[in-house]
Amino acid sequence: MKFDTVVVRFGGEIGVKSEWTRKAYEKLLLRNIKKTLKHHNVSYEAFIRKRGRIYIKTKQAKEAASKLTKVFGVSSTSPAVETNSELDAVAQKAVELADETLKNNASFAVRCRRIGKHPYSSMDVCREVGEQVLTRFKGRNLRVDLKNPQHTIGVEVRDKKAYVFTETLHGVDGFPLGSQSRVICLLSGGTDSAVACWLVMKRGCPIIPVYFDNAPFTDETTTARALDVAKKLFEWSIGFPRKVYMVPHGENIRKILEKNPKKLTCILCKRMMYRIAEHIAEAENAGGIVTGESIGEQASQTLHNLRILSEAVAGYPVHRPVLGFNKTETEETARKISVFEVTTRKAASCSAAPKKPAIKAELEKVKKAEEKLPIERMVEESVKTAKIITV
Amino acid sequence: MKFDTVVVRFGGEIGVKSEWTRKAYEKLLLRNIKKTLKHHNVSYEAFIRKRGRIYIKTKQAKEAASKLTKVFGVSSTSPAVETNSELDAVAQKAVELADETLKNNASFAVRCRRIGKHPYSSMDVCREVGEQVLTRFKGRNLRVDLKNPQHTIGVEVRDKKAYVFTETLHGVDGFPLGSQSRVICLLSGGTDSAVACWLVMKRGCPIIPVYFDNAPFTDETTTARALDVAKKLFEWSIGFPRKVYMVPHGENIRKILEKNPKKLTCILCKRMMYRIAEHIAEAENAGGIVTGESIGEQASQTLHNLRILSEAVAGYPVHRPVLGFNKTETEETARKISVFEVTTRKAASCSAAPKKPAIKAELEKVKKAEEKLPIERMVEESVKTAKIITV
Repeated sequence: MKFDTVVVRFGGEIGVKSEWTRKAYEKLLLRNIKKTLKHHNVSYEAFIRKRGRIYIKTKQAKEAASKLTKVFGVSSTSPAVETNSELDAVAQKAVELADETLKNNASFAVRCRRIGKHPYSSMDVCREVGEQVLTRFKGRNLRVDLKNPQHTIGVEVRDKKAYVFTETLHGVDGFPLGSQSRVICLLSGGTDSAVACWLVMKRGCPIIPVYFDNAPFTDETTTARALDVAKKLFEWSIGFPRKVYMVPHGENIRKILEKNPKKLTCILCKRMMYRIAEHIAEAENAGGIVTGESIGEQASQTLHNLRILSEAVAGYPVHRPVLGFNKTETEETARKISVFEVTTRKAASCSAAPKKPAIKAELEKVKKAEEKLPIERMVEESVKTAKIITV
Repeated sequence: MKFDTVVVRFGGEIGVKSEWTRKAYEKLLLRNIKKTLKHHNVSYEAFIRKRGRIYIKTKQAKEAASKLTKVFGVSSTSPAVETNSELDAVAQKAVELADETLKNNASFAVRCRRIGKHPYSSMDVCREVGEQVLTRFKGRNLRVDLKNPQHTIGVEVRDKKAYVFTETLHGVDGFPLGSQSRVICLLSGGTDSAVACWLVMKRGCPIIPVYFDNAPFTDETTTARALDVAKKLFEWSIGFPRKVYMVPHGENIRKILEKNPKKLTCILCKRMMYRIAEHIAEAENAGGIVTGESIGEQASQTLHNLRILSEAVAGYPVHRPVLGFNKTETEETARKISVFEVTTRKAASCSAAPKKPAIKAELEKVKKAEEKLPIERMVEESVKTAKIITV
């Protein structure tokens, strides 16, 4: 069967927005879909927009259906064949599709969704298609199973057209990228920060990752991994800038190590990262800083210490989307979005990290330690020497 | 079969902590388990602590196993029967348990975990038990299915003891409650804030919910629902205080409505809530404020507006654990933790909320609006008239 259409479903949270917001979101979604198709060299002849659906006419329906599951706001997609809405025509296409899909002893169900005026009901479609399939392929020992079928023959009737399909690919819902302010993300190359980035993207925020290059306390394996993670994340943001800030941070760490109690190293280092990120956020007109911190995941990430960290950029919002995730939950999401493998690739970990970091750092001691450091100059120098690269 | 033991499994993230932290966490977990058993009137004769396991000797093993799945840090539990570690003894108990569990045509697997020195391997246990069960219940047409069995006969051999079970109840992992600082939670009675509370509890933070009573803009149905939600959440924190702050907020809203552009109402109202929560947090020595905001879920929750909200309590960390959740994801968690029904119960929504709230409020205009309000006096008055109740 030659598929000629992709059925793109959206709705969910977009559908319940006010009329004005819904239209703005749908427009953005359409733009993101078009950019994604273009990026993957999928050509199309037409876009048919309906409430909660876009029907895309294309000869590359299978590929398009697959690529569009990575567009935020899309609930699901199906490669489909179009026909007119007459019951005979619908049944004929459904039977052709069933012929290819249903092997011997298979169970199946027919599901129909109908919008518009027709001389038949959705139930009529299901019954007619089901009967024709059973009669036509009698020799295959097929059976109808409405509860838990191996295959589903889907029919969507929209006014004078109908679309028939057997495959539905799940998207991730959320809001169209660009519907919310952009954010600065601290990207280490590890699993937590990658998942944190993705979660805010899912809610509509384009990201600008900032990577802190801790060399000589890490090495090029750490940097290479972080850049590969950024590339993976940008697969979800086709049509948006792919820039990454690379901030040399080794010299800052050296200065921190020189003068301060070892156990405060991570706190001091991270407070510097926050400050530098805040400068970049201001320059980029970003709405916040996103980090991969999860309560208690690391010694520097006790709830107590998160407060000490946030204090370094008081007034600037620090967002922590995986705050309440268990490690296994973060990993599960990482697998789902295909970043687990790259984020767990072997890379040098920071050799400046102390064996016994403070789990309950005192703000006063932290501030005292920072008095010995030329904080402002360090931040300025880091921002100035940061490289912006496009991956 | 009379169960006489509960196998309690933990580990996960607790297991990978440093020796010192792990021991502290295990101690806390043990305390929380004991408090939970006492609360549910489950008596026990002994606690046997091993690495990653606690074996509880009790006549109420089924009930205990069920209740302990609501203790954070617990991975899973099984009601079990204890026996000595001789292979014959183990096999005999396993056969007895199989007799009760395996109906005609059932498939099963035997799984064994063994720690200590024994004259047999784990594989030997599985083979021996499997063979005895098949021989003994020949008439039932049982079959072994190692991949996808209907029933699993579990055996844990620990030195001179062994535990046999057929049921494993899942816990939620996370960290023992009390291992992190307590937090102040804005609790509206809706789904998002309830899930946000639970997520930080799961990571070890005891919560102090603060409910803002917006009457006369809401009514007693809203208040009753919030208190019922608090009760549901406290089922997960047996042994910890069950206090809720009830803050009269109607008068604050009235003042806000009197002098300001309608579309800023929600932003101004919420900034007041944050400020009041900060005062309570200081008084309670809490580590942060937790809210149920999710990017874009409401007009007041655009990423842009979250920054305007946070600004009201600059320097105090606002944690938003469901920031990156889709509505369906929050609801899924709510169902899992049994708060969905109560949080979606019909209750009055705030009649002060404007039809067209600002989705991109300007900080300057917000500050100007607040100049007309006696902010400090309002906060003081609210904190002073707040009632602390125990639910």
